[in-house]
Amino acid sequence: MSQEAARDAAAGRPVQIHDPTLRDGQHAVRHSLGAEQFRAYLKAADAAAVPVVEVGHGNGLAASSLQVGRARLSDDEMMSIARETLTTSKLGVLMFPGWATTQDIKNALAYEVDLVRIATHCTEASVAERHLGFLRDEGVEAHGILLMTHMASPDQLAEECARLVGYGATGVGILDSSGHFLPSDVTARIGAIRAAVDVPVMFHGHNNLGMAVANSVAAAHAGAGILDACARGFGAGAGNTQLEVLVPVLERLGFRTGIDLYRLLDAADIAGRELMPAPPTIDSVSIVSGLAGVFSGFKKPVLDIAAREGVDPRDVFFELGRRQVVAGQEDLIVEVALPLRAARDGGSPAGSGTGSC
Amino acid sequence: MSQEAARDAAAGRPVQIHDPTLRDGQHAVRHSLGAEQFRAYLKAADAAAVPVVEVGHGNGLAASSLQVGRARLSDDEMMSIARETLTTSKLGVLMFPGWATTQDIKNALAYEVDLVRIATHCTEASVAERHLGFLRDEGVEAHGILLMTHMASPDQLAEECARLVGYGATGVGILDSSGHFLPSDVTARIGAIRAAVDVPVMFHGHNNLGMAVANSVAAAHAGAGILDACARGFGAGAGNTQLEVLVPVLERLGFRTGIDLYRLLDAADIAGRELMPAPPTIDSVSIVSGLAGVFSGFKKPVLDIAAREGVDPRDVFFELGRRQVVAGQEDLIVEVALPLRAARDGGSPAGSGTGSC
Repeated sequence: MSQEAARDAAAGRPVQIHDPTLRDGQHAVRHSLGAEQFRAYLKAADAAAVPVVEVGHGNGLAASSLQVGRARLSDDEMMSIARETLTTSKLGVLMFPGWATTQDIKNALAYEVDLVRIATHCTEASVAERHLGFLRDEGVEAHGILLMTHMASPDQLAEECARLVGYGATGVGILDSSGHFLPSDVTARIGAIRAAVDVPVMFHGHNNLGMAVANSVAAAHAGAGILDACARGFGAGAGNTQLEVLVPVLERLGFRTGIDLYRLLDAADIAGRELMPAPPTIDSVSIVSGLAGVFSGFKKPVLDIAAREGVDPRDVFFELGRRQVVAGQEDLIVEVALPLRAARDGGSPAGSGTGSC
Repeated sequence: MSQEAARDAAAGRPVQIHDPTLRDGQHAVRHSLGAEQFRAYLKAADAAAVPVVEVGHGNGLAASSLQVGRARLSDDEMMSIARETLTTSKLGVLMFPGWATTQDIKNALAYEVDLVRIATHCTEASVAERHLGFLRDEGVEAHGILLMTHMASPDQLAEECARLVGYGATGVGILDSSGHFLPSDVTARIGAIRAAVDVPVMFHGHNNLGMAVANSVAAAHAGAGILDACARGFGAGAGNTQLEVLVPVLERLGFRTGIDLYRLLDAADIAGRELMPAPPTIDSVSIVSGLAGVFSGFKKPVLDIAAREGVDPRDVFFELGRRQVVAGQEDLIVEVALPLRAARDGGSPAGSGTGSC
């Protein structure tokens, strides 16, 4: 289908924007957002008629911990503030099985959250079964979403999404967790999933290769009905899809978001002023981690270990990418760095620091 | 053509990167770059084998003035430093007829510049005739490039480019001066120009709608042989296409740039550290000016006049866009703001501040 034909096909089709600024953005500020910041942004997003606003620790329910960082506000405080501030927007939360349990979901339901997302690695949908089943029985909207999805083929993702729907998911989605995708990658994956399930399909982009908006547009053209985006792109590393850019671009292409542009720009201005020291930008480490397909959470330990061992952190990223590491496998960084150092000391070109793409 | 087919078609096709970091980036720092900054970036870009590096005042040869800002370095200083620093990269300069004359081109040729670009408004190629003819007679590579090209249809641009070639241009190109294009807009325009001329075609993007990289990739797929990009996107407003992002994305898609990725990332790191207080980001004003198709140079006067008259600057931008203003027509801002104020005072919805896209 040509782009013009795609544009015609889009005419008037609704796309629901899901805004995790107050959850994914927490990664960029070590989960330090406070009550006044929450209120200011929630009020502004609600005024713009953003359909769903997601709140939480960066890693979702019950994730506040020494290991991934303590959040300034408790889950209860965040959900309570959101519940009392939102008048139009729905309230969403995210949970990673492992960090959170059914008990944490029950606690969230006490705040009348409208949507719970259960996130698993792209090939491990089965981990979500119990939670999606519980939410189906409770009659609560529940989406199953898959992480690090560049590691799975379109067909694999379609199978996993069909599994999520079987467990009770009322929506499914894929995250480009490491910002690796180009638009054609997204088109193929969303297309395959759409062909396999009858529920709304979501895409969540990261901007490591400057493609977050273009990838989200590709997802919409391929039939995604839900797109994640954050004010000013607020998020870890190179950031997420920039909400107030995506919305008018979608509208110009013939999609309908139901969001008021001027109020949305106001909300983004508030986010820029109140939530973040500076908006995300694409630095060289973000580019390499996106190319390598490594989650941006590896940035700091990779830089630290590469400096200590005297090897090029870019070589470390590309080798980690070849090994398909996921969050939690940071111990592999040393395992990768040591042979690079040995290669360098032995004069092998493996440590020469000249890279290919 | 599907994206997969386009990817196959690209296999191995060379794309020449043209890097105006030390010319377009000057806009972001009021043309204040100094000799040490020039040397640091020129050396790094040269080491990365960037094919062409362009230097100058933001508005090109002889533009240093009270009206658009005095440059810290003279044209002679910039060209002299570049000439003595570059060993591999070619040296380019830009000239806007009006700011510069044939005498300034002659002066540039004394520094053995490899490429001179003559820039005109998108429908005024004829203004470049004399300069392109002079350069043809001198045997110097000379490109004709068109500004604010969202204001002209693909066919009009193709006609103007054919005219430029008739005048002697050895390359032609289009600038998305206000960052208004989406990829399909670029595909249509580059395709029409390619069908009309036999010389290399250039695309120069701005990132107001988060599409600079995607638009540049669309241009390459449509047959553009030259792409402009700046380290860290250094440029006015939302910035230019980010060089060190574009290059590995092109390589991944099967194009060949001949640039060393690690050395390019090093150059971008130097640019980020030495040339700019912070990399460009996409703020709300950038988005509105991109949507409206207004050159980012209007930002400051629009904000000043809107504040003075108590009207919404976004309404001013959209009305300026409807009037198709170009740089130099800043006087129209007041003419647009006053009726908006009157409408507001009279209670008309024109000044209500609720916008459509």
